[in-house]
Amino acid sequence: MSINLDKSQAFDKLVSLKPYDVHSVSSERIKECSVQSASLTFNYACSPIEKKHIAVFQEIFDECQIFDKFTSLLSGDRVNTGENRAVLHHLLRGNVLGKKILIDSVDKEEFYRIEKERIFDYATSVRNGKVLGSTGKKIDTVLQIGIGGSDLGPRAMCIALSSYAKANGISIIQPKFISNVDPENAVNVMSDVDPETTLFILVSKSGTTLETLNNKDLVKTIAESKVKDKNFVFEKHLICVTSQTSPLAKSTEGAKVFYMDDYIGGRYSSTSGVGLLIMSIAYGAKVAEEFLCGAHDSDMASYNNKVESNAASLDAFIGVYERNVLNMQSLAVLPYSEALLRFTAHLEQLDMESNGKSVNINKEYVSYQTGPVIFGECGTNGQHSFYQHLHQSPVITPIEFIAFKNNSAIDQNGPYAPVMKEAHKKLNANVIAQMVAFAKGATNSDSNKNFTGGRPSSLIYADELNPYTLGALLAHFENKVMFQGFIWNLNSFDQEGVQLGKKLALGVLNNTTDDTALLEFSRMLI
Amino acid sequence: MSINLDKSQAFDKLVSLKPYDVHSVSSERIKECSVQSASLTFNYACSPIEKKHIAVFQEIFDECQIFDKFTSLLSGDRVNTGENRAVLHHLLRGNVLGKKILIDSVDKEEFYRIEKERIFDYATSVRNGKVLGSTGKKIDTVLQIGIGGSDLGPRAMCIALSSYAKANGISIIQPKFISNVDPENAVNVMSDVDPETTLFILVSKSGTTLETLNNKDLVKTIAESKVKDKNFVFEKHLICVTSQTSPLAKSTEGAKVFYMDDYIGGRYSSTSGVGLLIMSIAYGAKVAEEFLCGAHDSDMASYNNKVESNAASLDAFIGVYERNVLNMQSLAVLPYSEALLRFTAHLEQLDMESNGKSVNINKEYVSYQTGPVIFGECGTNGQHSFYQHLHQSPVITPIEFIAFKNNSAIDQNGPYAPVMKEAHKKLNANVIAQMVAFAKGATNSDSNKNFTGGRPSSLIYADELNPYTLGALLAHFENKVMFQGFIWNLNSFDQEGVQLGKKLALGVLNNTTDDTALLEFSRMLI
Repeated sequence: MSINLDKSQAFDKLVSLKPYDVHSVSSERIKECSVQSASLTFNYACSPIEKKHIAVFQEIFDECQIFDKFTSLLSGDRVNTGENRAVLHHLLRGNVLGKKILIDSVDKEEFYRIEKERIFDYATSVRNGKVLGSTGKKIDTVLQIGIGGSDLGPRAMCIALSSYAKANGISIIQPKFISNVDPENAVNVMSDVDPETTLFILVSKSGTTLETLNNKDLVKTIAESKVKDKNFVFEKHLICVTSQTSPLAKSTEGAKVFYMDDYIGGRYSSTSGVGLLIMSIAYGAKVAEEFLCGAHDSDMASYNNKVESNAASLDAFIGVYERNVLNMQSLAVLPYSEALLRFTAHLEQLDMESNGKSVNINKEYVSYQTGPVIFGECGTNGQHSFYQHLHQSPVITPIEFIAFKNNSAIDQNGPYAPVMKEAHKKLNANVIAQMVAFAKGATNSDSNKNFTGGRPSSLIYADELNPYTLGALLAHFENKVMFQGFIWNLNSFDQEGVQLGKKLALGVLNNTTDDTALLEFSRMLI
Repeated sequence: MSINLDKSQAFDKLVSLKPYDVHSVSSERIKECSVQSASLTFNYACSPIEKKHIAVFQEIFDECQIFDKFTSLLSGDRVNTGENRAVLHHLLRGNVLGKKILIDSVDKEEFYRIEKERIFDYATSVRNGKVLGSTGKKIDTVLQIGIGGSDLGPRAMCIALSSYAKANGISIIQPKFISNVDPENAVNVMSDVDPETTLFILVSKSGTTLETLNNKDLVKTIAESKVKDKNFVFEKHLICVTSQTSPLAKSTEGAKVFYMDDYIGGRYSSTSGVGLLIMSIAYGAKVAEEFLCGAHDSDMASYNNKVESNAASLDAFIGVYERNVLNMQSLAVLPYSEALLRFTAHLEQLDMESNGKSVNINKEYVSYQTGPVIFGECGTNGQHSFYQHLHQSPVITPIEFIAFKNNSAIDQNGPYAPVMKEAHKKLNANVIAQMVAFAKGATNSDSNKNFTGGRPSSLIYADELNPYTLGALLAHFENKVMFQGFIWNLNSFDQEGVQLGKKLALGVLNNTTDDTALLEFSRMLI
């Protein structure tokens, strides 16, 4: 059922289609090129496609049986073939198909629901002071120790909601994160932390992640050295998020444990306990529930077999067209929102770890390009950094802009509301100007000041960035990346490419390698 | 004197040379492929070049008169031809040629030296409590308001030195930064700041940067609303770094002013008052002086007409070879050092704003590729994010690794020294393993677990990251980017590509545009 993109007859048609010339973008086109997904609008007026492309996208969608692949994934089939696992992150936030998913004799919807309720109950107990630290103090900080998917997504989400929570009068238990095995990371973060009023969340699905276990030891050492009260017991401040079969789940340390399973990939785990526990402790269960709701509504909008009205699939196809027909290698993701400070870093993992692959789902090498390099910073910071390259480099880099009409973080009654509103207007004037500048360019007889334009972008926007919209945004990109993986005929849910480095590092650490290059570099650096 | 790269006869030779196969990297090669620059060692054992390439690099270096271009720049010639400006950032940290640089009848070395001494004197007065806040309190925070080059470099440098300062018992006046016009940025940062004990540094060379002036207004509003003491005068806490001709320099607000000039580009201004004022207030003049010393020594090492022993030029040529012969579009910069958390973000601006260009120094379109897309995160965080793509994508992305044998931030007498040392060893085992994994790969009959290798990288390392080494590292990359601009025959010192967006944004804000696309997007977003 799964065919390579270059074996699709419709793909040949796509290659022969000329791109839409974005110099011509007009008011009419902007109105037409709009697709809704939950509270988000995806506008592709400045992208290099038009109706004839979408018609061919639909042919590819049908020919490559993309909808069937999505249905199969949602049904609990083991679509992560390399690891023989189902892929169930959609089920964390709702049941798209509405049918029971039984795997290993477990009703997975029920399992995830129970864990979610345990998490929300626990978070509520922490927030209302029923759960106290081991020395009897109220908790004011929650610190997550994890790396990769146990860090990037949850961190990006917590940062995104901070100002919203403040402006909406939600009391905040301060979320913090430690990820890097470089000990400076833990020491820096711990320097501001009072262990007596802090909960530590240790996140590792396997329970064996080198960086995370090392950081737990370092954090424990620092915490025990900082606290003078003899009643302090680090383990009473420790919560684990791990799989039921991991060593952490079985540890006798007495820490509280919440469970995830092998069917939630790290980079897809923001809506599992990995992301929800810290979010619901920091901002409350209601915020986390709204976040899930936005993600589910975006999933529902993505489960649609018409590309023209399916924002995530359309976004995916535009990316494939830019990558495989127009030969663009990178994608800049530029949120005009300080709240999305680390969102692009999360997408970097989501996209590059999912689709930076050379073999298809049947383990055959593919003869076409797959996922792009993802980079970006918030606007307007990026404008004063790398936009020179985006505007005038010989290479064209397509862009996804993200923007919000209003800023929900502006406390309407706060003393700075007028000047904040003015600044927000300037922010949006800039994203508008950039889209048009990239598309249309501007002729100047001084070639150094000439803008050739013709540089494509798309825009995802909403009224405001609240928990619901954040969930929808997260799911939009998860589903976009999933669709691209389907189109490229990849398994987007494993990551074998990270294994070799881990193995060689252990060889260096344990002195079990006889590779002369490893040994020589070790003499230089260890 | 300046010829396009593709007109160089030696370039044809380079195109015909086969790359070195990095699968073969050995202990001997690692020992051989090493060049010193100040306290740094540049090791190119895992890069795709060997002696025959370096011989051709030297031919290009000579044919394209790269050394003469550098000499001309150092002599104060107006090598930024588009803006008719000299390029004098090297002079900020020392006089490479040792001759007087007179421009506009000003002895520029003297001018920069005087400003530096004014800055260091002022910083010392703040640190020893002679300068107090307007309500008589000791200063404990210094907050820089700037964007682009007034933010990225200074921020990256201050973050880099924080742990060093702590471990070495240097008292810290906390450095903070606000850049984004999104008001959330200023509101978030100000929420932790006591204006009575804070100095605010406003940095804008032109004195007209939209984001920076807007943020100054917002910060002033917040500060005045937070402080209850009627003696508080915001302007007495304000310091400006600007050019002598800017409106800020003439403002009657009574703020203290330090001067820079038009011959220091924003992205090259970390060693000017833009970077030095906050660094010397935060960590003391001695740290800033060592930082300058490292940069100067690295400049001296770069002013060498033999490519084989000139690390910055060799690094530049390897990049050109990868870009223009091997057709690699991106470059990942991966520091295995939490202290360099924002160093890659600075390099993104430095490189992409300098060399992301299509016209040469004579304003003729070039027919070859120029600067790459730069991205990256600290190791080991990156390993758990986008390394899948780096290891197994069909596209090969070259890498620059940065590592330090020891961690100078480990307080040798501190209670966590043993566990920090162990973590640092794990960190370095990982960078070692990654270099070898990328180069050699590993064969596996399961294609999904097969690593083809042949993925090039280089390594810059030093004993430890201290202020001197940080200065050397900064200057290494500044000079690398400069050499690449010379090789590509570009003007690396202007940034006309950022102007169009600014102009259109003003049109949106002032309602002076009749462009239908701008108006339609405005209806959506404003």
